Amino acid sequence: MVLLRHELGGVLRAYRRRQGRTLREVSQRAAVSLGYLSEVERGEKEASSELLAAICDALEVPLSAVLGEVSLRAAEVEAVAVALDGLPVSGASGVSASAA
Amino acid sequence: MVLLRHELGGVLRAYRRRQGRTLREVSQRAAVSLGYLSEVERGEKEASSELLAAICDALEVPLSAVLGEVSLRAAEVEAVAVALDGLPVSGASGVSASAA
Repeated sequence: MVLLRHELGGVLRAYRRRQGRTLREVSQRAAVSLGYLSEVERGEKEASSELLAAICDALEVPLSAVLGEVSLRAAEVEAVAVALDGLPVSGASGVSASAA
Repeated sequence: MVLLRHELGGVLRAYRRRQGRTLREVSQRAAVSLGYLSEVERGEKEASSELLAAICDALEVPLSAVLGEVSLRAAEVEAVAVALDGLPVSGASGVSASAA
């Protein structure tokens, strides 16, 4: 199952790191606690829409751009999940030696 | 301020309506209450990542596709906000008669 908060957290962290900024700096700018921002970035906490908007504002990136990247990441995870679904599961298919 | 839950709700509602399905049907399939799904669709309630995944599953649409549409909607709202920012605000600029 692809979870929004996991992909969203990764995208927000990538934006911050590309800008060479610290958790402290962005959390102060967004008026959220450093611990909260860190949990959101690790995909452990759901960000409310208002706080997500404040974080995007602090990163000076439009919400639409963040969501576009999240959509691409989610599509990659979905593709991997489909590929794994198609693989034979060890021991679950084929004819065993004793049954042959 | 563009809020994720507003755009997300609109996209989920649009998917359901395009499929000609009722709130009751989709909420039962997603194992969420009808009232909750309705509030999410109206942008009044934040959907947790797990419940969003369940709703996408019930609608048989990948999360990535939903988020892609949400990103496009958010970009439209952002463009309108920028356009409105550029308009002169009545009474807020220019020289008043008494000051001239």
